[in-house]
Amino acid sequence: MQLHLHQTHHTIGDFNGVFDYIQDQAPIKSGLHLFPELFLTGYPLLDLCLQKGFIEKVLDLHKKLDTWAKQNLAKNDAMLLMGGLDYKFDDQGLPADIYNVIWAVDGNGMKRVYAKKLLPNYDIFDEEKYFTPGEDPGLLEWNDKRIGLLICEDMWHSTHHIQDPVKELWQSNPDLDLVVNLSASPYHLGKCEKRLARGREISHLFKAPFAYVNRVGGEDEILFDGDSFLTDGDGIIWRGKMWQEDSNTIELDQVATKSYLPLNAPSTIANTWESLFTPDLELASKPAQLSTLSEEKLDELTHALIFGLREYASKCRFKSYLVAVSGGIDSALVLALAKLAMLPDQTIEAVYMPGFYSASESYDFSAQLCDNLDVPMRHLPIKFTHSSLRNQFQDIFGQELTGLSDENIQSRLRGMLLYTRSNQNNAMVINTSNKSELAVGYSTQYGDSVGAISLLGDLYKTEVFALSNHINRRFNHLIPSGIIDRPPSAELREGQTDQQSLPPYERLDAILEGLLSYRMSVKELHNYGFDLEEVVKVHNLWQNSEYKRRQFCPIIKVKAKSFGFGYRVPICKK
Amino acid sequence: MQLHLHQTHHTIGDFNGVFDYIQDQAPIKSGLHLFPELFLTGYPLLDLCLQKGFIEKVLDLHKKLDTWAKQNLAKNDAMLLMGGLDYKFDDQGLPADIYNVIWAVDGNGMKRVYAKKLLPNYDIFDEEKYFTPGEDPGLLEWNDKRIGLLICEDMWHSTHHIQDPVKELWQSNPDLDLVVNLSASPYHLGKCEKRLARGREISHLFKAPFAYVNRVGGEDEILFDGDSFLTDGDGIIWRGKMWQEDSNTIELDQVATKSYLPLNAPSTIANTWESLFTPDLELASKPAQLSTLSEEKLDELTHALIFGLREYASKCRFKSYLVAVSGGIDSALVLALAKLAMLPDQTIEAVYMPGFYSASESYDFSAQLCDNLDVPMRHLPIKFTHSSLRNQFQDIFGQELTGLSDENIQSRLRGMLLYTRSNQNNAMVINTSNKSELAVGYSTQYGDSVGAISLLGDLYKTEVFALSNHINRRFNHLIPSGIIDRPPSAELREGQTDQQSLPPYERLDAILEGLLSYRMSVKELHNYGFDLEEVVKVHNLWQNSEYKRRQFCPIIKVKAKSFGFGYRVPICKK
Repeated sequence: MQLHLHQTHHTIGDFNGVFDYIQDQAPIKSGLHLFPELFLTGYPLLDLCLQKGFIEKVLDLHKKLDTWAKQNLAKNDAMLLMGGLDYKFDDQGLPADIYNVIWAVDGNGMKRVYAKKLLPNYDIFDEEKYFTPGEDPGLLEWNDKRIGLLICEDMWHSTHHIQDPVKELWQSNPDLDLVVNLSASPYHLGKCEKRLARGREISHLFKAPFAYVNRVGGEDEILFDGDSFLTDGDGIIWRGKMWQEDSNTIELDQVATKSYLPLNAPSTIANTWESLFTPDLELASKPAQLSTLSEEKLDELTHALIFGLREYASKCRFKSYLVAVSGGIDSALVLALAKLAMLPDQTIEAVYMPGFYSASESYDFSAQLCDNLDVPMRHLPIKFTHSSLRNQFQDIFGQELTGLSDENIQSRLRGMLLYTRSNQNNAMVINTSNKSELAVGYSTQYGDSVGAISLLGDLYKTEVFALSNHINRRFNHLIPSGIIDRPPSAELREGQTDQQSLPPYERLDAILEGLLSYRMSVKELHNYGFDLEEVVKVHNLWQNSEYKRRQFCPIIKVKAKSFGFGYRVPICKK
Repeated sequence: MQLHLHQTHHTIGDFNGVFDYIQDQAPIKSGLHLFPELFLTGYPLLDLCLQKGFIEKVLDLHKKLDTWAKQNLAKNDAMLLMGGLDYKFDDQGLPADIYNVIWAVDGNGMKRVYAKKLLPNYDIFDEEKYFTPGEDPGLLEWNDKRIGLLICEDMWHSTHHIQDPVKELWQSNPDLDLVVNLSASPYHLGKCEKRLARGREISHLFKAPFAYVNRVGGEDEILFDGDSFLTDGDGIIWRGKMWQEDSNTIELDQVATKSYLPLNAPSTIANTWESLFTPDLELASKPAQLSTLSEEKLDELTHALIFGLREYASKCRFKSYLVAVSGGIDSALVLALAKLAMLPDQTIEAVYMPGFYSASESYDFSAQLCDNLDVPMRHLPIKFTHSSLRNQFQDIFGQELTGLSDENIQSRLRGMLLYTRSNQNNAMVINTSNKSELAVGYSTQYGDSVGAISLLGDLYKTEVFALSNHINRRFNHLIPSGIIDRPPSAELREGQTDQQSLPPYERLDAILEGLLSYRMSVKELHNYGFDLEEVVKVHNLWQNSEYKRRQFCPIIKVKAKSFGFGYRVPICKK
């Protein structure tokens, strides 16, 4: 039997694109075709799947597909397994139950053969809000083959779920010829190896090949990396590319000849969601330290960020990027990544907006960076406007602009000018904040925190340094070393540096990772070797800056635990 | 037996405040004391309940309370039923199960007697993300009384839930002396009557009094109105005040003497969540129309908005309000409500920021409004800065500011100036957008959409008019009639009016309510009598403006279906 793995790439709700993809496969090759979870609709849908306009389109596609299948597959020995939705309506026509299912499409039309059992409902996942769990056995018998069916989360089990679909499948069907998992699995750094390890384990358990088909795409903040695979336990028969559509055809009968490990029951290796969700703190050091990112991980990160940026721009139909450069490292890395992400039909522009407190080397570094990257740099000083607004405030309110109000106005002036330029040339503003700043509220609302999307909002400042150095190693020193070496500063007052307000970034980032990913208490962090006063300070900055994060732009998610949709905390609390 | 109903008002995580409240009741009166759902912790907690620092504080409070109870309640014949959390930890000390429970506190200390069965997980609710459903029978026998226990959602049943705790309780205990429901029930307009109707029904069913104890508070966007009650089926023995702490003591034995309706099984009156969640469209009219708000509803709305604003300001520790007035109706209503909300120790300021296209009557109306309200108005023209930035853009980019870029810069200049002033006098900026604008993206990001909190973001423009007229009837014409009568305009270009870009608000608002609350499709709305082209236009404006709403401030929620936390839609989709 031929096995066709389709690692597809479609926007949410792209019903025409999905149908075209299927038609483009004509003539349909015989054998078993696998498509990702919710291939027909996209994922995550959230409230979209409840909107009747969306439901009408889903049902239209099903009708079209059913007719197409009866006309085109009747003479083929082909079976298409596609992720999609199955709606059950109440007597008022409202969706009573929505199932996340596998549709089997062949010459007889469309038929539901499986519904997802484990509905992830933690972190970014809200599936129990929308979907009803399935109870189908998960076995498809086709052409003398016995095929086990799973959808995404079904292959994991954890304290989040009582059920264990892999175990159940194995207990009732220890003799399968193939186990398949249709997935829409959100990416984070290092997740791929864990999926593969778990896939191998399942293959060993069933003594049968395991096919994992994942989607590709960037949906707002969430990335889907693809990286589908077929494994026979030890070997990787095929592995789909990351970050792009990919497909392959494999003769299954030539695969299933390997010797499998004598596993008699599912082990616990890599089969809990918690093990998938590893935070990055080395607790043995005193104080605890953020893990160092390997070159491979930094490569992976570069590709993930570039993909995420391209996706968001293309889905919002932007042909231009706009970045405010300051001579600091965050904006330098953003500009370098945006330049690397740029497609031939796209343009990019940098705007340098010096104020009274901008050092002269900030200009030099910015100019050198733009020169290295071959990006046009516009010079739009804010001094004159700042000065005239200072006078206006003094005149009207009888109060000088000082302290925070004088700092913030510079940042907001820049935000305003940047967006005016963005209106003028229809360019997408890329935000330049990093995760450390975001976590402690070290930014100005409507100022440096503006943007359509945040590229570095899931990277701590120390990781911004690591990635900048990595980019420089890979791409011949794009970022001037002066930018990397100078002490970080917002340049909003005379002689300002980040370290006047914050602990050194190595410690700050480790404390933040403890608070955010491990959800540690102040007491615990103190036990891991941090100064109590410092932890309390960071903890309070974090707790009191929720209002800024609430109005922040979507952040490209590259870590297991990120700010954004999966991070839900009240603004007001004691 | 004496029944003490405590309708309490505490911020999330105010563990000291909660303990003080209990201690302040000393000496504890004999009888049964009822406190709201999650009285001990606050609600909604979201990820807070997973943070170890928060958990430590919860466990500390439990320990303190247990000791206090043993010392102070041993000689009283008192039983305190309090909502709180019950944590079960795994062997790594991580929370494995969290229950939303009723703690029975008496001379023996604290004991869990019930855990919530129905966990709401729709719209703003995420309880299945955090909590494990309970399986306790829900019966407390105390001092010869048989008391039925419910927590909030448990009293409703719907297609969202398979279980029906009221029915189960009644089937196993048809002979109760009292049924209690500890609640943390988010407010929306008109919800009170439905709670009461359902409470009466439960009382009739059990032929026993029904006590409903709800919390009071504003938690970011969500309001809790209180409005607790004790009913004997027909009568209302006590009803707690809305929007404030309240409590009462009732001799239960004098209550339970009424004759009850011969109900032999739970009926279906008002006992589904869907019936609670009524959208506001009159579908019989052609085209469908938004329901008119009665004077009572407008009064309720006024109080709700004032309460919500006060709560947010007090929890963020603001002593001043700041409102940008434009001479238009939205900012006029916001200023009037803010003035009504102002406490004796608070201040308020209006800022009028005219540009090239501001009509002279915009100044006159603004001045008259501020005069009526006795609010100081500052006059901060943007013309000079706008003009000089026009020149700067022309010089630097060789491109005039025209069209959208010239419109948006004015709005953003105002946003920036407003926030500079807010920094200067530490005042809370109240956003002035309405639900209609928000729905179609008729606002400037980082411009008129700035603010700490949105007061009118859950009111359609036609409702803004209705409420303004209502305020004028109630409070001697605070808002100049000229503001109400003039055609709405953003005044960002010559001769601009809202109606150049949008359908008349009566139709726009009805279409939006169809799309948002009923989730109707374009086709359905057309069937309800709207012009197809107009519906398509509104639908597309709504679908394409998601990115603006994503970065919007919290909106005080006063309707069943609102933008904000309970509205979750991808930004990018086809």
